[in-house]
Amino acid sequence: MIIVLRPDSTSEQIDHVVQRITELGLKPHMSRGELRTIIGVIGDENKLQAEPLQAIPGVEQVLPILKPFKLASREFSRGDSVVAVGKVKIGGGHMAQIAGPCAIENAPVLDEIAGHIKKAGANILRGGAFKPRTSPYSFQGLGEEGLKILRDMGNKHDMPVVTEIMDIRQIALVDRYADMFQIGARNMQNFDLLKEIGQTRRAVLLKRGMSATVKDMLMSAEYVLAEGNPNVVLCERGVRSFEDSTRNMLDMSAVPNVKSMSHLPIIVDPSHATGRPDLIPSMAFAAVAAGADGVHIEVHSCPEKALSDGPQALLPKQYAELMERVRRLAEVVGKTF
Amino acid sequence: MIIVLRPDSTSEQIDHVVQRITELGLKPHMSRGELRTIIGVIGDENKLQAEPLQAIPGVEQVLPILKPFKLASREFSRGDSVVAVGKVKIGGGHMAQIAGPCAIENAPVLDEIAGHIKKAGANILRGGAFKPRTSPYSFQGLGEEGLKILRDMGNKHDMPVVTEIMDIRQIALVDRYADMFQIGARNMQNFDLLKEIGQTRRAVLLKRGMSATVKDMLMSAEYVLAEGNPNVVLCERGVRSFEDSTRNMLDMSAVPNVKSMSHLPIIVDPSHATGRPDLIPSMAFAAVAAGADGVHIEVHSCPEKALSDGPQALLPKQYAELMERVRRLAEVVGKTF
Amino acid sequence: MIIVLRPDSTSEQIDHVVQRITELGLKPHMSRGELRTIIGVIGDENKLQAEPLQAIPGVEQVLPILKPFKLASREFSRGDSVVAVGKVKIGGGHMAQIAGPCAIENAPVLDEIAGHIKKAGANILRGGAFKPRTSPYSFQGLGEEGLKILRDMGNKHDMPVVTEIMDIRQIALVDRYADMFQIGARNMQNFDLLKEIGQTRRAVLLKRGMSATVKDMLMSAEYVLAEGNPNVVLCERGVRSFEDSTRNMLDMSAVPNVKSMSHLPIIVDPSHATGRPDLIPSMAFAAVAAGADGVHIEVHSCPEKALSDGPQALLPKQYAELMERVRRLAEVVGKTF
Amino acid sequence: MIIVLRPDSTSEQIDHVVQRITELGLKPHMSRGELRTIIGVIGDENKLQAEPLQAIPGVEQVLPILKPFKLASREFSRGDSVVAVGKVKIGGGHMAQIAGPCAIENAPVLDEIAGHIKKAGANILRGGAFKPRTSPYSFQGLGEEGLKILRDMGNKHDMPVVTEIMDIRQIALVDRYADMFQIGARNMQNFDLLKEIGQTRRAVLLKRGMSATVKDMLMSAEYVLAEGNPNVVLCERGVRSFEDSTRNMLDMSAVPNVKSMSHLPIIVDPSHATGRPDLIPSMAFAAVAAGADGVHIEVHSCPEKALSDGPQALLPKQYAELMERVRRLAEVVGKTF
Repeated sequence: MIIVLRPDSTSEQIDHVVQRITELGLKPHMSRGELRTIIGVIGDENKLQAEPLQAIPGVEQVLPILKPFKLASREFSRGDSVVAVGKVKIGGGHMAQIAGPCAIENAPVLDEIAGHIKKAGANILRGGAFKPRTSPYSFQGLGEEGLKILRDMGNKHDMPVVTEIMDIRQIALVDRYADMFQIGARNMQNFDLLKEIGQTRRAVLLKRGMSATVKDMLMSAEYVLAEGNPNVVLCERGVRSFEDSTRNMLDMSAVPNVKSMSHLPIIVDPSHATGRPDLIPSMAFAAVAAGADGVHIEVHSCPEKALSDGPQALLPKQYAELMERVRRLAEVVGKTF
Repeated sequence: MIIVLRPDSTSEQIDHVVQRITELGLKPHMSRGELRTIIGVIGDENKLQAEPLQAIPGVEQVLPILKPFKLASREFSRGDSVVAVGKVKIGGGHMAQIAGPCAIENAPVLDEIAGHIKKAGANILRGGAFKPRTSPYSFQGLGEEGLKILRDMGNKHDMPVVTEIMDIRQIALVDRYADMFQIGARNMQNFDLLKEIGQTRRAVLLKRGMSATVKDMLMSAEYVLAEGNPNVVLCERGVRSFEDSTRNMLDMSAVPNVKSMSHLPIIVDPSHATGRPDLIPSMAFAAVAAGADGVHIEVHSCPEKALSDGPQALLPKQYAELMERVRRLAEVVGKTF
Repeated sequence: MIIVLRPDSTSEQIDHVVQRITELGLKPHMSRGELRTIIGVIGDENKLQAEPLQAIPGVEQVLPILKPFKLASREFSRGDSVVAVGKVKIGGGHMAQIAGPCAIENAPVLDEIAGHIKKAGANILRGGAFKPRTSPYSFQGLGEEGLKILRDMGNKHDMPVVTEIMDIRQIALVDRYADMFQIGARNMQNFDLLKEIGQTRRAVLLKRGMSATVKDMLMSAEYVLAEGNPNVVLCERGVRSFEDSTRNMLDMSAVPNVKSMSHLPIIVDPSHATGRPDLIPSMAFAAVAAGADGVHIEVHSCPEKALSDGPQALLPKQYAELMERVRRLAEVVGKTF
Repeated sequence: MIIVLRPDSTSEQIDHVVQRITELGLKPHMSRGELRTIIGVIGDENKLQAEPLQAIPGVEQVLPILKPFKLASREFSRGDSVVAVGKVKIGGGHMAQIAGPCAIENAPVLDEIAGHIKKAGANILRGGAFKPRTSPYSFQGLGEEGLKILRDMGNKHDMPVVTEIMDIRQIALVDRYADMFQIGARNMQNFDLLKEIGQTRRAVLLKRGMSATVKDMLMSAEYVLAEGNPNVVLCERGVRSFEDSTRNMLDMSAVPNVKSMSHLPIIVDPSHATGRPDLIPSMAFAAVAAGADGVHIEVHSCPEKALSDGPQALLPKQYAELMERVRRLAEVVGKTF
């Protein structure tokens, strides 16, 4: 950590800063320049990050040198982590092909969709039973009834299933039905939920918050890892921006960016990122090219009757065409699913 | 609601759209132009907003006309709502002067701070017992012990108290100690928490999410109101932006913007918005000028030893100077506290 | 265009709006609902877009239906435009592989770089002679001397050349040396420059402004097209965002988004978008997968001695490896360069 | 400047970095920690800022310590600068009250508006003769004819005049008619224009770019100052954001933020920042409270017939009411106009 002192800092102030650092068992290392004095601090930076050094009179800036996450970092684990969801592996060359409707509506509709996507190459079935909706007047999901349908259809079509969990009280319930918990963008910094999920050993799909930096996302993963659950898969799903012709802005560079800093797998959700079926296939394809460990795509056999987010779903036929192209690209980039 | 059809839409497609609208008990009203056909839909727009009309083949755009919130809207209640927190009123000319440390650390420190701010003009004491921290390794708050200290110091210095609640399981506990629940920016769209808080009748300080639009914030208030709790106070606390010299970007126009659309009170938190003590006083002062129903300011008697967010706290002396100026401005704008 | 009236609008106000529309030679079409009255306007929307209808008392919202650009639109020209730069074609299956240093420094350095990139597969040589630098104290480019070097090296290595133009007074000069004008992000809305460039017939590489929407970029292209120059190639180069680990945020979805709205070619510049050499190759590769008509990459044989933007340049060896992968992907997506 | 080395940097790499620094006549100062080695560089940081140290193998981060601007900095000039525009002073307790229509349309309309605003308290008349319009099909301004009208009405109503300049070729022309040049948001980084304006001695109103940081704005001011023109007034006019109910997001904290870093005056333009007449008065009022050296407001006697940006103009009556309130606030904050 580097502490930069103000040009007008007094020697009493500088001594005080040095004393605070020494009290914490760390070693200050001073450099006096013409315009500024700076103090390098050698030792465990985490001790210092919790300290409000910036508030000490005479201090102008405090610059951290190390990244704030440990267990999620590439330094902690050099190789790529592989997360198992039922029989499916994600990471280290294995791709997740997650697909399904936004919300679970009833068994026949999910059965039809699951049949189509399985045939097209999907390996994990998704569907929401608890829906985070901006409006309290929108459809909020079928709850446990939806979870049962999801489990049944996962079994019937031989795919593990993932579903969103929004509330700590739902953990035991969802745990009985799902192979993977999804933590949605709005809950990425619901730290109590992260801690409780961290105490299970179930795989987690952690979606990026709407205005979370890549480091914020890794810090949220750190919450789960720190509780002992290593099975975290990250998901880029677009962030808020000024662009008004797409629902969010897909930050494609988050894929290699996460991989440079972390060993965790990362997949991409072009459905929520763009909100536009006409852009989803090319963004899914580009995500695989960018090195993503999978894609997450909403598919509905009748988007105009979907109870949630219908307008951003692909038709089964469009999904099958996309998977055909993804398969060819997977060969070029040396991945399997 | 306006439905715009694609230039190449067929008459079968148009008939299908008309049929869907009619099935919902609504009345379509068609206008055929040279370049586009548009369909106006007369009737309860809320029915339609839940429908994925955008997904119907031939549809190019769906433009909502009405705002998606009802109970929070200015149309629902013409006058300004006044929310009571203990003996303190917020809204309708009454200003909240909320102050205190970021986190409750121990009784003597909070006692000292509370004494100072009360004398300076604060009327509500704040302090965190449960802290949402980006890092799992940062101080997470004292929990119930902190709540007790907060209650005691509120009683001693004759101020109602507000504290953040992050987890549904804490509601009964916090309800025993606090006069007002704070829902933090990270939980603005934690819909289960909003619903549960909506079932109490306790006052709520609902902070704007880091990338929430003003309408998103009003939709979150709608969740609380829809459960029967009318005591919602909104709080502008800055949003994420590209500007890197302040912690967040304070959207001052949110104050009159909320007031144009809603009857709910809104206050401003310049501490989290700027993260810079040198900018807090002028932003608090400007917030009152902009029409805010109060300000929320972090104060600490020794910022450099604060366990959380010390660098953004004002000293008691700085707070007292600010309140002096706010008092003069309150006279000009015709408000009291 | 749809005009939505306020719920409290009077019949005098409505009559006044109708009269204004009729005066403009257009036909209003009224729909009266329970909660709002709306007026659809049939006819040339461009006439109306210039009118401040929003300012008429009683009007709540004005919603445009048609896109504001014409010549740049997909409706204007169904097929993909192909732009020629010397012997190189861009668009319609032909990819631009633009590479070179940020700034032209001297002949030997550019000679070396040009030799490497040509061998690796580049087909257009780039280099800046006039540099837009945030600081007036940074290297501002070699000017005409740089242009001569660029032309010579383009000739020697048989590649057309592209260089940035910042000032109307440079047009005749740059026109003597370059095959393609580049308009940088900071000048995307320098409308006088766009108009003057529009009066030449030289190919233009128009980079997206740092906070321009996709539609804004197409409107800037419209300025060039409206003056008679059809040879516009767009370039996505990242936009400003809150993410602090990359220089900008690469909006990859701009590629298919532009293609859905316009016939113009679009390429991607991952160098400026990410500012990080470790992310450039995967983003270039993903851009081709997303459907881009080429990529624009900064290459320098000694980044640590580059006079501008060295830290974001690839080494010739890294560029060659990337081009090898791009070549294989080009086959999969059916494009050539 | 601080150079942070990678954990795996070799001693050859470290030696190479040290050598590069020494070659530049600067003195490296090394601190070896457990996890990272850092090198502090003592001496003129500007020399280093131009060097691509980040590109040297083994370097992880380069952290600048000093701000990149000099002449614009508070360190350069401790007191507040005062800029004269005709008889009007801006800064150091003197406020600019700039008002007028977006575009100059004809003499009678401008005469009427100027009469009203002068009476209400405006001290500088604004009006556009060259208009930067997103669409090439929108009204582009009256050009020299407009400048003449502006000059005449400024003389008649005894107010200096300010007008936007977009093109270097217009400098001599505009210089004949106007007392102050306005550089618009879209041209904030048109560096050639800044340099040319810097060679005049005329007052400049420099508007913040739509995605410019506060430091970027100060760097643009530095371009003008570095050419010898000290008469720069900055203008906060809102930045691009995700908020969709206002035209831009007014960054009110830019006012004290600029004042902490620079001696230059800064005013606020709530008209462009919000785009909503109902929000303009409270934002103008708040700007004065925040410490702004003036406000810039669009006023039109018939907004619905304005040729540009009518919907965001105040009526003369609304402006007069606002000025009445601003006058009372000016007393409280100790400023005059």
